Amino acid sequence: MTVLSPDALEARLREIGAERYHNRHPFHRALHDGALNRMQVQAWALNRYYYQASIPVKDATLLARLPTAELRREWRRRLEDHDGDAPGTGGIARWLKLTDGLGLSRRYVESLEGMLPATGFAVEAYVHFVGERSVLAAIASSLTELFSPTIISERVSGMLRHYNFISEETLAYFAPRLTQAPRDSDFALAYVRANARTPEQQKEVIDALLFKCNVLWSMLDALQHVYMEGHPAPGAFRGDGTPGAFSA
Amino acid sequence: MTVLSPDALEARLREIGAERYHNRHPFHRALHDGALNRMQVQAWALNRYYYQASIPVKDATLLARLPTAELRREWRRRLEDHDGDAPGTGGIARWLKLTDGLGLSRRYVESLEGMLPATGFAVEAYVHFVGERSVLAAIASSLTELFSPTIISERVSGMLRHYNFISEETLAYFAPRLTQAPRDSDFALAYVRANARTPEQQKEVIDALLFKCNVLWSMLDALQHVYMEGHPAPGAFRGDGTPGAFSA
Repeated sequence: MTVLSPDALEARLREIGAERYHNRHPFHRALHDGALNRMQVQAWALNRYYYQASIPVKDATLLARLPTAELRREWRRRLEDHDGDAPGTGGIARWLKLTDGLGLSRRYVESLEGMLPATGFAVEAYVHFVGERSVLAAIASSLTELFSPTIISERVSGMLRHYNFISEETLAYFAPRLTQAPRDSDFALAYVRANARTPEQQKEVIDALLFKCNVLWSMLDALQHVYMEGHPAPGAFRGDGTPGAFSA
Repeated sequence: MTVLSPDALEARLREIGAERYHNRHPFHRALHDGALNRMQVQAWALNRYYYQASIPVKDATLLARLPTAELRREWRRRLEDHDGDAPGTGGIARWLKLTDGLGLSRRYVESLEGMLPATGFAVEAYVHFVGERSVLAAIASSLTELFSPTIISERVSGMLRHYNFISEETLAYFAPRLTQAPRDSDFALAYVRANARTPEQQKEVIDALLFKCNVLWSMLDALQHVYMEGHPAPGAFRGDGTPGAFSA
């Protein structure tokens, strides 16, 4: 192994994004091309809710491991973005506007009852990763945000164009992310460029980004398997037949 | 919620096994019906290796939480079964005889390089579950062993009958499990019958068994998705083209 320059490391990370980020997944493409029905979009929003709801847990786990006030102040902003400053504000609350708009009851969404087991395993793997690996790897695992403005633009425009059950208001989650994600990923990228100085550290960073791409990819694999291809998932959300799933 | 008698609780657990245990999964059925090719059987053995290799980690995690010498002695036997008493003995070593027999190199299998990400997430969810939930739930999560003699008999007879690349020797893993699993599940079932006395405790036990069925099921979902249906899994085992996968 040879050490990469910061620019070469960044180029390698961007290459991983181009190959492995979940905007290339068939479920995402179907979502933004309008190829899904309402139940499939509901299943996506319902499962993705657990990811959104776990992000502040992930960030708090990392926050508790950061050694300086400077780093903690920076990372604390992510908690503010996701948890908000008052009831009904922040990223999780805005995600619930999406599940509201799709006609899912909040009680059902928040209960996680209809979530696919594979969603839970992937999301919890991410939370455990930032608690167990090095701080450098934990910060690097957030670098999928380098690629999220692209997927968000595709999602918003594609979903508004193709689905009559989607409005600008139900997509309220996404607009702030277009500024938050680049701000956060600028910080994480600068940190990684400055702190991954040995081949071993650079491998940790690369592996952390691959891991995170796998988390996001496997969540869409599970949705595709059950909701596009119709394989059984006992206990999981099945649309209108699911007790408690729909708001009155 | 009303409290169940020990017999009614056991009946409910056996009902969950009948409905949700992974012997009902299409990948398992294809495996034992001879409907898989050698590469698909290799992918199964390779991914399942990580489960086998993690079982003693799971059992040691639980062992560290057991409060009495009596319970720890009982649980310690599981470590002996899986790790053996000397190099080349125990369940993990016997699983490697299977991957050897399938022509996979040990270095590749043990490196986990070709494993599906979803396998890792599911297996690690199991290890974390026994570390984080109550001891009662952790013990109950082992109760899938109540159903394993059935699946093992199906696997062994089906695989020997249908695959010319499988021999009694490569299936050495399974024979001892036919006596070990019932001994272990007898203990766990008696523990659960005696200690799940409130409706809340009984719900914990039921949920633990459902969780464990979901772990095993989702591992087969991921194999089916990639190796039966051909969806992409970047970096995962792809048969003969995979560098390092095959023994010389």
